[in-house]
Amino acid sequence: MIETDILIIGAGPTGLFAVFEAGLLKLKCHIIDALPQPGGQLSELYPKKPIFDIPGYPSVLAGDLVDNLMEQIKQFQPGFTLNEKADTIEKQADGTFIVTTDKGTKHLCKAVAIAGGLGSFEPRKPLIEDIEFYEDKGIEYFVKDPELFRNKKIVIAGGGDSALDWSIFLSNVASEVTLIHRRNEFRGALDSVEKVQELKHAGKIHLITPAEVIGLNGAEHLESIDIDENGAHRTIKTDYFIPLFGLSPKLGAIANWGLEIEKNAIKVNNALDYQTNIEGIYAIGDVNTYPGKLKLILCGFHEATLMCQSVYNKLNPGKKYVLKYTTVSGVDGFDGTRKEAEKAVVKSID
Amino acid sequence: MIETDILIIGAGPTGLFAVFEAGLLKLKCHIIDALPQPGGQLSELYPKKPIFDIPGYPSVLAGDLVDNLMEQIKQFQPGFTLNEKADTIEKQADGTFIVTTDKGTKHLCKAVAIAGGLGSFEPRKPLIEDIEFYEDKGIEYFVKDPELFRNKKIVIAGGGDSALDWSIFLSNVASEVTLIHRRNEFRGALDSVEKVQELKHAGKIHLITPAEVIGLNGAEHLESIDIDENGAHRTIKTDYFIPLFGLSPKLGAIANWGLEIEKNAIKVNNALDYQTNIEGIYAIGDVNTYPGKLKLILCGFHEATLMCQSVYNKLNPGKKYVLKYTTVSGVDGFDGTRKEAEKAVVKSID
Ligand SMILES: Cc1cc2nc3c(=O)[nH]c(=O)nc-3n(C[C@H](O)[C@H](O)[C@H](O)COP(=O)(O)OP(=O)(O)OC[C@H]3O[C@@H](n4cnc5c(N)ncnc54)[C@H](O)[C@@H]3O)c2cc1C
Ligand SMILES: Cc1cc2nc3c(=O)[nH]c(=O)nc-3n(C[C@H](O)[C@H](O)[C@H](O)COP(=O)(O)OP(=O)(O)OC[C@H]3O[C@@H](n4cnc5c(N)ncnc54)[C@H](O)[C@@H]3O)c2cc1C
Repeated sequence: MIETDILIIGAGPTGLFAVFEAGLLKLKCHIIDALPQPGGQLSELYPKKPIFDIPGYPSVLAGDLVDNLMEQIKQFQPGFTLNEKADTIEKQADGTFIVTTDKGTKHLCKAVAIAGGLGSFEPRKPLIEDIEFYEDKGIEYFVKDPELFRNKKIVIAGGGDSALDWSIFLSNVASEVTLIHRRNEFRGALDSVEKVQELKHAGKIHLITPAEVIGLNGAEHLESIDIDENGAHRTIKTDYFIPLFGLSPKLGAIANWGLEIEKNAIKVNNALDYQTNIEGIYAIGDVNTYPGKLKLILCGFHEATLMCQSVYNKLNPGKKYVLKYTTVSGVDGFDGTRKEAEKAVVKSID
Repeated sequence: MIETDILIIGAGPTGLFAVFEAGLLKLKCHIIDALPQPGGQLSELYPKKPIFDIPGYPSVLAGDLVDNLMEQIKQFQPGFTLNEKADTIEKQADGTFIVTTDKGTKHLCKAVAIAGGLGSFEPRKPLIEDIEFYEDKGIEYFVKDPELFRNKKIVIAGGGDSALDWSIFLSNVASEVTLIHRRNEFRGALDSVEKVQELKHAGKIHLITPAEVIGLNGAEHLESIDIDENGAHRTIKTDYFIPLFGLSPKLGAIANWGLEIEKNAIKVNNALDYQTNIEGIYAIGDVNTYPGKLKLILCGFHEATLMCQSVYNKLNPGKKYVLKYTTVSGVDGFDGTRKEAEKAVVKSID
């Protein structure tokens, strides 16, 4: 059982920043995310695109913002349960919660902050017979760990940035990379399209277009796939098939936790602390709704901050909290590090 | 008469960022500030200190954050009325407002956002007879424009960073700089103390400690000051005397505008848009209060954003607002510039 003060569901920008604010209040955090990496929509959907409305950043790449947030929180040593979905919640008699993932990992915590964004990202699966049978046996919808494909034959399908970028990346890892798309045209960053073109000419990526995967074969594990190339059928050997047809977010199991839901978002009382109808469960960032709600990153940061204050007050009843400025008080990490402003000296001049 | 959509009172981080959010909604802003430069507390009180809790910045100097905000908003061409205090407000029959400063500058606007922080900074004035008579005639409490002192004799009094830093800076501008402090010890950044020491030895700064200014002389304009140096009195010639004894913020005239005030802050209904008890007047950032309020920079950013949405909705009744992501829609400046993410291409690979 993993134990923590605040269990955060969702490692998007809101969940990540909550770790920092909690840390200032000496509260430990652990984060669950369905994706293999932190950053939520920013890492998964637009890591290389600039955001222009992060206060103080005239422009910042989404991926860089995530890196900066990870750097900002590292001193508070958050734990991560990645590649797992928060599935069930159980409120204990003493007010603590146990949250269990779809893979059975259990987390005991004093408060829960749902920072689930638009929901956990579910891959759009192609309609191929038996595809579920081969999941984890040759079918992968995400590249969780590129090493899985070291010296293997892989086939990637898709026509967007993910398909292009992973084909490029894995061409240095896998023994053979084939990219299949049902059109001749790809849609993505100019760089990526040109790089794939180049790797194709160098013989490092096999391109089959327009084509579709229509069948999967293999006894215990995927061994080959059937493709329809402009009406002609053929079978090609492969160890892995990675269909990258985009993701669609699903609130999923959280929708059954007894929380008030409105338009696929969790209702909170924003007047105070973004708490839901269940005491001790908060909803922050894109996942919540209240009158005037804006689904913006900067709003998630504010909500995370007020949520942490509320948890602190709940866990320390009667203790009067005095706001401390980081500039004045510094930041003491759980890892023993300390950040602080240079101290003024008192010194005579002679 | 200066005309604008949103008149912002206070050029601290909250007021500055409001210009950006308003700009995204095609609303023009004008800012009034009592100080000679934008940045509020950050520029005036701790420009060279690091802040650790700006989301996405593991550390940022307060002065750099202000520079970045100025860079972020410049495409929306905010107007500035600096060195003036918002003094009176008049609501017109058509719902617009006229705000007049203590120097008589009038501003006509559709909405007012008070982002006045802890209030406008008032200098702590030393208790010297006739000091008010010499204000603007040789007495300056701020260095608004260093050029005023070009080739003049100046005396600075004070023992903190401002006194040290302006003595250093003006030693290259004025013909003679004298620094007076009632103790031998100065309190400031080590750098600054050492630099003053060095300039003293080089004969570029005259230091008189422990000493106090006790009298001012001159017919129309300051001509000399009397000092008490350890009990001994003497008079020194000077064109300017700049006492830098710190600032204390005062809500000032705004306290008489009919707004609900609680603990020196303006009450707002945070549930929606940070509007005050007077429709069309908002209060954002450190200056407002509501249950759970935290006086943090990141909270001001969120409040500014929701305020702008509310103004937009008020000015465009019935028009349904659809949130646009800057990453997706880009940012169109009022100066004709456009920021945008690189577009995806649709391109075949052969
Ligand atoms: C193309 C695009 C451009 C954008 N541009 C901007 C912009 O310019 N400015 C701006 O402010 N915003 C922009 N946004 C919106 C911004 O990305 C979101 O506001 C932000 O990501 C919300 O952060 P979050 O942390 O609340 O949620 P998310 O980033 O959505 O992260 C939520 C995380 O929770 C996880 N999760 C959900 N449910 C579960 C579960 N049950 N178990 C485990 N994990 C779960 C998800 O996998 C996900 O990783 C843009 C969005 C897109 C798609
Ligand atoms: C030493 C120190 C360290 C700090 N460290 C941190 C930190 O680490 N993190 C953090 O989040 N916060 C920190 N703060 C607090 C932070 O500076 C404030 O939250 C922030 O400045 C508030 O911004 P604002 O724009 O609301 O107001 P302010 O920055 O106070 O700006 C308000 C402006 O309004 C002007 N004004 C007021 N009334 C009038 C009027 N009638 N007419 C004209 N102008 C007027 C003032 O002159 C001022 O320039 C710190 C503060 C101090 C003093």
